[in-house]
Amino acid sequence: MPYINVRITDDDVSAEKKAAVIAGITDVMVRVLGKSPDSTFVVIDEVPMENWGHKGKSIAELRRQTKG
Amino acid sequence: MPYINVRITDDDVSAEKKAAVIAGITDVMVRVLGKSPDSTFVVIDEVPMENWGHKGKSIAELRRQTKG
Amino acid sequence: MPYINVRITDDDVSAEKKAAVIAGITDVMVRVLGKSPDSTFVVIDEVPMENWGHKGKSIAELRRQTKG
Amino acid sequence: MPYINVRITDDDVSAEKKAAVIAGITDVMVRVLGKSPDSTFVVIDEVPMENWGHKGKSIAELRRQTKG
Amino acid sequence: MPYINVRITDDDVSAEKKAAVIAGITDVMVRVLGKSPDSTFVVIDEVPMENWGHKGKSIAELRRQTKG
Amino acid sequence: MPYINVRITDDDVSAEKKAAVIAGITDVMVRVLGKSPDSTFVVIDEVPMENWGHKGKSIAELRRQTKG
Repeated sequence: MPYINVRITDDDVSAEKKAAVIAGITDVMVRVLGKSPDSTFVVIDEVPMENWGHKGKSIAELRRQTKG
Repeated sequence: MPYINVRITDDDVSAEKKAAVIAGITDVMVRVLGKSPDSTFVVIDEVPMENWGHKGKSIAELRRQTKG
Repeated sequence: MPYINVRITDDDVSAEKKAAVIAGITDVMVRVLGKSPDSTFVVIDEVPMENWGHKGKSIAELRRQTKG
Repeated sequence: MPYINVRITDDDVSAEKKAAVIAGITDVMVRVLGKSPDSTFVVIDEVPMENWGHKGKSIAELRRQTKG
Repeated sequence: MPYINVRITDDDVSAEKKAAVIAGITDVMVRVLGKSPDSTFVVIDEVPMENWGHKGKSIAELRRQTKG
Repeated sequence: MPYINVRITDDDVSAEKKAAVIAGITDVMVRVLGKSPDSTFVVIDEVPMENWGHKGKSIAELRRQTKG
């Protein structure tokens, strides 16, 4: 009955890539843990870059610094 | 001090229905566990269908197949 | 496809009460949102009192003050 | 390797205030637990007021009552 | 900067299998989304069966019925 | 009505340090966002090192390599 929550930065990820994430993670649960795909759920959250912090700064700020 | 997080697919659920979910779950916490409504919090997350996966596919894809 | 995560303080809640929480919340999802019980999942997390904070203090500390 | 998820009501919080939340919480992890800023992640979720419930009602409804 | 939270029932999963889940999911993030392993975090939560509900009953109860 | 979930590796953190994390984070919410301590909740989850993955390996494994 696995439930997997994937949190990534909101980078305009395409529906195709999100489908591949869902398929890939479901496959790991089936292959490694013997779970059924029927009982495996994956939820992807896309987080705005100014809401995700690392090293005490937002990713939005860190990317501006890298480009600057 | 219960905190309840409800995750559902984003199906244009009305404010009235969301209010009924909040009221109903709060009532369960009061009735079953003797919690106070004052200390009970419910947060509803509405997840886009292409971000929610089941059986290795997105709900968006599964619904297209069902209709097809 | 609702997924509901219930977080409560760890108060030695009995299996019977946890089963009643699961049944009650599932019933809310069915009754209010028209969801199927087959696609409704409830996960209860029991959190130690020294790990749950309110008003800047742990629940463990707040309960000691109330009794003191 | 701390991961901190901050959930607040969606009140049009400015990027500056969100940056200050990220900086402040990272500082707590460094100062209190001796964690490295490099391994500290903070994710802020802003929740619509009709999706956040307290006392069996949504915050949207509670604010309307207070103003009324 | 992906953060992935895997929730499974507590079935005495071995450290080897948990390591394979971590490796497999990290590989999906690298392969599908082009993320760096250095910035990918996976956290596994093992949930007691009487705390995980499906179809309005706990998994503990559902398994007893299946065996009975 | 902030709810903050802190996830750290399980390193036998003392009750005093956990209380300081709760106090420090609550203070950030009050000082930066003007929230009331009465409506601020902090929940700390301590995650076993073999359940927390980074760079495709568990923290338990990464620490063994560092020491080896």
